[in-house]
Amino acid sequence: MDRIKAAVIGYGNIGVCAFDALKESGDMEVAGIVVKPKYLDKLQRELPDYPVVDSIDKLSKVDVALLCIPSVLVPEEAAKILQKGINTVDSYDIHGENLVNMVKRLDSIAKEKGSVSISGAGWDPGTDSMVRAIFEIMAPKGITYTNFGPGMSMGHTVEAKKTPGVKKALSLTVPKGLGFHKRLVYVELAGDARFDAVEKAIKENPYFKKDETHVIPVEDVDRLMDNGHGVLMERKGVAGKTHNQQMEYRLKITNPAVTAQVMVCAARAAMKQKPGSYVPLEIPLIDYLPGDRWEIINRLV
Amino acid sequence: MDRIKAAVIGYGNIGVCAFDALKESGDMEVAGIVVKPKYLDKLQRELPDYPVVDSIDKLSKVDVALLCIPSVLVPEEAAKILQKGINTVDSYDIHGENLVNMVKRLDSIAKEKGSVSISGAGWDPGTDSMVRAIFEIMAPKGITYTNFGPGMSMGHTVEAKKTPGVKKALSLTVPKGLGFHKRLVYVELAGDARFDAVEKAIKENPYFKKDETHVIPVEDVDRLMDNGHGVLMERKGVAGKTHNQQMEYRLKITNPAVTAQVMVCAARAAMKQKPGSYVPLEIPLIDYLPGDRWEIINRLV
Repeated sequence: MDRIKAAVIGYGNIGVCAFDALKESGDMEVAGIVVKPKYLDKLQRELPDYPVVDSIDKLSKVDVALLCIPSVLVPEEAAKILQKGINTVDSYDIHGENLVNMVKRLDSIAKEKGSVSISGAGWDPGTDSMVRAIFEIMAPKGITYTNFGPGMSMGHTVEAKKTPGVKKALSLTVPKGLGFHKRLVYVELAGDARFDAVEKAIKENPYFKKDETHVIPVEDVDRLMDNGHGVLMERKGVAGKTHNQQMEYRLKITNPAVTAQVMVCAARAAMKQKPGSYVPLEIPLIDYLPGDRWEIINRLV
Repeated sequence: MDRIKAAVIGYGNIGVCAFDALKESGDMEVAGIVVKPKYLDKLQRELPDYPVVDSIDKLSKVDVALLCIPSVLVPEEAAKILQKGINTVDSYDIHGENLVNMVKRLDSIAKEKGSVSISGAGWDPGTDSMVRAIFEIMAPKGITYTNFGPGMSMGHTVEAKKTPGVKKALSLTVPKGLGFHKRLVYVELAGDARFDAVEKAIKENPYFKKDETHVIPVEDVDRLMDNGHGVLMERKGVAGKTHNQQMEYRLKITNPAVTAQVMVCAARAAMKQKPGSYVPLEIPLIDYLPGDRWEIINRLV
């Protein structure tokens, strides 16, 4: 069988890990890496064995594109690539209506062009969403709590960095239990920026506004960087009429590595779906895995 | 939308819970309960508001049958019901080749008759199998350990009970860690049975032979009965090239209640599949849940 040709769009934390994960997947290959023109020279020298380009159109054949770019850029980029008849996978992490609306918009493009998109295919949203569904399959009534961290939130860090006066930032998510969190935002100030203005701006950002947020000035943010993360999901619920069914799911992971790995598995799954736009819940779990149907069933069931 | 008409086949521990779970599911209804002729009178008196019959043919309309019967009886019963064009769901719990071969055999019947079967739809196999797949999606390389218990093993209890000289038995599965288990088998001896002969026979039974097994004589097995169970699944693996990704999944559940609840959700999912035979891994998670696609996605993703 032909190997799946996957392009990596963006070569930040997640892009680097997606590149690694593709090379470790026997059924897939790196069709190329797409970066902004300013990174082209450096990355071409760094990766002489792979096509490094500034537009997906410059790659010869691509089955699926892994969008390793900030979530806010995903809707437009996914639409553009789906238009070309190329499948897309993203780890868009803005939960709820934003995701729903994006999937609805992409769906019509994908169906028209015969392509497939899978959105929110990281660990949360992504595999955590799958586990939340499994919890409800076992106990339809009850409450699920998702507790994140302690760990760096990439989305919140990007938001904090955008704040005027911030040179570098790191936003840590710290669980308070029962699904509540606080945010510790470490900031390195730019030149003559005033801390109190920065603190106020971050606390008023909608990304931070609903959580307890502490902004902490530091000399050197780089020394604090660690991309480990975690989650504890808990549910206590009712199966049929029987109460007190207890479920727990816990991860201690390297955030970009697992995000990228889930995206790579979703890229494999995308090749097996009918044209349209999906979230990971809508795809059979077996489609994410390489190998023979019966071998997988024999091993995992 | 019409409610899904589900028949409960067998009214033991799991059948009772399936009946409860169906009544709690707003989109489903109990089409009837099928039991052996000898239980008919008693159960008809107990459940005057529901059709209690000794053959599924005596029920007017059935969309899906929940096979709440011992695993060894499932292959024949599923085949018989699929032949009638009725979907089936079972929690067949003999892992590996036995399950694979049954699904292959049922598949041709189901496709010919336009029906759907879902096999191994309990918690293990079933939802645990789903989590094992999710673990591999996040970290394709590594080892997953499934640790059961402490809890009653229904299969091992049935085996222990068959031993000559045993009046009643209870086999507890106790985790030793890293996927190893020991078995504590509590036995109530029949009349003049000799304990050492019973102990030897149980330890030599292939169901027990490969595990550390302790046989313990007791006066009254009924006083020990509790159908709580648990599992701890653990994986440490590699995402892309990044090692030490740690995953953990833990349940403390009432065994028949959760088994039956998963079967009921699978019955709902069966209605949405194309004719054929499936294991739970092959079905999108969203299909198990009631309600609107976008509402589910918005809530769980």
